[in-house]
Amino acid sequence: MSQQASELFDNFQELTPSEFFRKNKQMLGFTGKIRSLTIVFHELITNSFDAAEEAGILPEIKIDLKRIDKDHYLLRHSDNGPGIPEDYIMKVYCTMFAGSKFRNIQSRGQQGLGCSGCVLLSQMTTGEPARVVSAYEEGDKLKGVKLEFKMDVKKNKGMLLKREDYDAKHTGVCVELEFKDVSYSLAEQGAFEYIRRTIIGNPHAKIIFRDPTGHKYIFNRAADMVPVLPKEVLPHPKGVTADDLIFMAKHTDKRRFRSLLTSSLSRMSNKRISEIEEITGIDLNKRPKDMKWDEAEEIVNAFSKMDFMAPPTSGLIPIGNEQIEDGMKEILKPEFITATTRKPVTYRGGVAFIIEAGIAYGGNSGRLVNETRKAEIMRFANRVPLTFDQGSCAITEALKSIDWKRYGLRDLDNTPVTIFVNIISTQVPYLSTGKQSVAPEPEIIHEVRQATMKVGRKLQKYLRAKKAAKEEALRSRIFEEYVPAILKESAALAETEVPEYQEVLAKVTRRSLAELLGEDPDKVEEEVEEELTSTIDDVEEEKNPDIEDID
Amino acid sequence: MSQQASELFDNFQELTPSEFFRKNKQMLGFTGKIRSLTIVFHELITNSFDAAEEAGILPEIKIDLKRIDKDHYLLRHSDNGPGIPEDYIMKVYCTMFAGSKFRNIQSRGQQGLGCSGCVLLSQMTTGEPARVVSAYEEGDKLKGVKLEFKMDVKKNKGMLLKREDYDAKHTGVCVELEFKDVSYSLAEQGAFEYIRRTIIGNPHAKIIFRDPTGHKYIFNRAADMVPVLPKEVLPHPKGVTADDLIFMAKHTDKRRFRSLLTSSLSRMSNKRISEIEEITGIDLNKRPKDMKWDEAEEIVNAFSKMDFMAPPTSGLIPIGNEQIEDGMKEILKPEFITATTRKPVTYRGGVAFIIEAGIAYGGNSGRLVNETRKAEIMRFANRVPLTFDQGSCAITEALKSIDWKRYGLRDLDNTPVTIFVNIISTQVPYLSTGKQSVAPEPEIIHEVRQATMKVGRKLQKYLRAKKAAKEEALRSRIFEEYVPAILKESAALAETEVPEYQEVLAKVTRRSLAELLGEDPDKVEEEVEEELTSTIDDVEEEKNPDIEDID
Repeated sequence: MSQQASELFDNFQELTPSEFFRKNKQMLGFTGKIRSLTIVFHELITNSFDAAEEAGILPEIKIDLKRIDKDHYLLRHSDNGPGIPEDYIMKVYCTMFAGSKFRNIQSRGQQGLGCSGCVLLSQMTTGEPARVVSAYEEGDKLKGVKLEFKMDVKKNKGMLLKREDYDAKHTGVCVELEFKDVSYSLAEQGAFEYIRRTIIGNPHAKIIFRDPTGHKYIFNRAADMVPVLPKEVLPHPKGVTADDLIFMAKHTDKRRFRSLLTSSLSRMSNKRISEIEEITGIDLNKRPKDMKWDEAEEIVNAFSKMDFMAPPTSGLIPIGNEQIEDGMKEILKPEFITATTRKPVTYRGGVAFIIEAGIAYGGNSGRLVNETRKAEIMRFANRVPLTFDQGSCAITEALKSIDWKRYGLRDLDNTPVTIFVNIISTQVPYLSTGKQSVAPEPEIIHEVRQATMKVGRKLQKYLRAKKAAKEEALRSRIFEEYVPAILKESAALAETEVPEYQEVLAKVTRRSLAELLGEDPDKVEEEVEEELTSTIDDVEEEKNPDIEDID
Repeated sequence: MSQQASELFDNFQELTPSEFFRKNKQMLGFTGKIRSLTIVFHELITNSFDAAEEAGILPEIKIDLKRIDKDHYLLRHSDNGPGIPEDYIMKVYCTMFAGSKFRNIQSRGQQGLGCSGCVLLSQMTTGEPARVVSAYEEGDKLKGVKLEFKMDVKKNKGMLLKREDYDAKHTGVCVELEFKDVSYSLAEQGAFEYIRRTIIGNPHAKIIFRDPTGHKYIFNRAADMVPVLPKEVLPHPKGVTADDLIFMAKHTDKRRFRSLLTSSLSRMSNKRISEIEEITGIDLNKRPKDMKWDEAEEIVNAFSKMDFMAPPTSGLIPIGNEQIEDGMKEILKPEFITATTRKPVTYRGGVAFIIEAGIAYGGNSGRLVNETRKAEIMRFANRVPLTFDQGSCAITEALKSIDWKRYGLRDLDNTPVTIFVNIISTQVPYLSTGKQSVAPEPEIIHEVRQATMKVGRKLQKYLRAKKAAKEEALRSRIFEEYVPAILKESAALAETEVPEYQEVLAKVTRRSLAELLGEDPDKVEEEVEEELTSTIDDVEEEKNPDIEDID
């Protein structure tokens, strides 16, 4: 019965990252048929966008999803990015934890798991190899290559099966993967909605999508500018831990700690170095390797007491109000839209981020439930739609904490609005490997609240103005109906002619003569009447309940 | 501006698992000060339990948490398990994705991340090394060793700093780790509550905990038996994918596919092999390496059409009704308790699992909110409390879907109940690396519903009986008060003596003579009155509203 420790450890083994995720594919977000396919779309689109933008190219993606059988699909995804050099292709698609995005730069992908996760899923469900065509510039030549390979999970590497030269016309990558146990759906969490939201968050991108029925959707650009390329920025002193300093010190080629600091951190000058020496009493001329933990801690402590300029924001490129509005207009055709972009701030002391929010009202805003439109929240991180795990997300939490009644939205759930929130950061604090929710850091929640309250107030203003216009119109109607009657009666009594009253009346009711003379003066009211009364809350206005009864 | 592909890949690098998680510690569950410490407790306790039980030892754990400064703690965790052989100590504590638990066996840990994650967090926040004492048997000798080491994240390995022999008295492991940026809390998601729930799920364990104030809590065993050790079971044919078969075929030493199948899968006999050959037409005498994907798929297809006995359940050891009740009684001192254990079934076609549920009512059941007790849900997986991410968990989803009103719980939220649900499986489908929520597989949701509805019905029965007893008591009171009065009046009218009516009355009211003669006959009612009326729903019973007015 009882076993010795040595026996218990007979089975001790070490897994490669690929083996680990083969056993735990749900940690890559691959759970459920619909979600699995959405995650595949997400990973491939994300990768194409990042690559194209880094190369200064306006992204254009073609996706072709063929249904082979029930829950069995062939996906072909091609982009117009810079391509992947031959030596890196299998690393990108078969080695987990490998990538070019581990820098301190704002990019959609961060983890070196995306593409290889898709290949893993394809292989696990169909046994088919991946087929990749890559066309890229090398020197002044355009090279093209076509590879067919599998993933060797025991080695966390690719196994080449076939290689051909490819006669390329322009740069780009085309991936072909087969999947079983996945399913294409039009639901909120399905692949189609994912593309739609992607376009909202990326109005500069074009996606051509052929769905399994053969229908071709063309999502055109609402904007024609490649987003400014975010620059890699050095970490800000306030975001650095003692562990980071020790880690830097261990892996640097600098000879002195002071030069390590000035070269590895932003906002760090010689003047700052002297300040640190003054506060801590540590001689920063010492060699990096000689830095002790306690000293690193003291330095971090000194950072926290010092005033630094905010992190450089060249690393953060928000979508921008105008583009958010364009993107939402293109897809939602709303009656009203507004967006706001907050100034960069930091969480955990020094990781910079920007929150952007938009709100669209009317038109196709909101999600369609049984033919009525309800409020919908679209969460984005670095322009990437977050589709799952919304419960634990900082964005959801912040929105829930707002008292929408104060913004005139008495019953938010049943209002046809789409609320858009995007977090831009070099380091989005995702809660899970699936990158579907943002950790509820207090600073992030605060910023999301501020941004959405601002667009909320603007929507409130619009709805108020709309209601006021309606009430004004109603008041005018009273004048318009009764004044002429009184005039006529008075004229009759006085046995004189009815005077020319129209011009004066138009002045009083502030309406054009044309309107007064009958060109559908009350069009506005009829349209709005019902939704207004059901969504606007008049907490701050004097109510005149009789007005509406007159009509 | 525009960059070539080759330049873009200049930064391409491969991370070790440790490097990856150093950058993404939230994926190990380390987010927030309170949660981080709870996760540390969770990983260390879980590991100690698994080791002790595998060695057939009743687990006893001592935890000592000292507060060094604000958010700065020293944790010493020791167990009475079999110890870790010296060669494996640094692998267990410093190599991620390494472990002895990757088999098809029910155990709390599964991922080879827990202990090394704790060391990583300690090192990242304090720069301090880990100190481990391990005492273990080797042959018939008791060996002891004391190591001090750090984790080399670039290599995913330990770096030994100090080694001493240690004069051991008995086997076991003691770990000492220092943490900053963590916080001890009595909240629902804090470390103390985690221990309390652990004892409910593991009534055979003893935990002695000294908290930062120096107060010593002793959580005694409610049961004195080491749980039967789950056996490693072969995977069930219905739970196997084509990819699994190909993977097995690639890494086997068997010469023929038929012997691979019979030796690697459960419920697989020669008769079954012939059946498979018949259905598929594939010659199973071929060498494993020659197995094609299509053939593997056909075989899996054949599996799905064949009738197999359910998976062997020797791999699954539930806690058992009696022990669940003992565990909950020990901690909650409830007025009523019941538990149920479902029969093993499978999800995803062949992964066996068992759902157990318990419900406790009254006493310390429920969570205390502003001095009133509200309903609380305790989720467990293989006896381990799940503390976070409850929103997306299969258990929460199942419980939400139940119409509790039908079980007499009109307002579940405000009822003092603790609902306990445990899933036992060799392969719990966790949704995230933090192992805090169970994927909502339809079969799991179904079983959780069935189990909780069963205990719900029992609670309903109890509450009904209690209410009926109360009403009975009230009815008796009517007899007891009025009959004697009538008798006396009648006797007076008839000018006779009052007869001996007590015995007859006792028969009629079904109460003991002693009760009748005044030994607090209505104690029950007073106690229960209020909660009953607020929690019991009388959908199926005739109501008699007048009875209560009489009292």
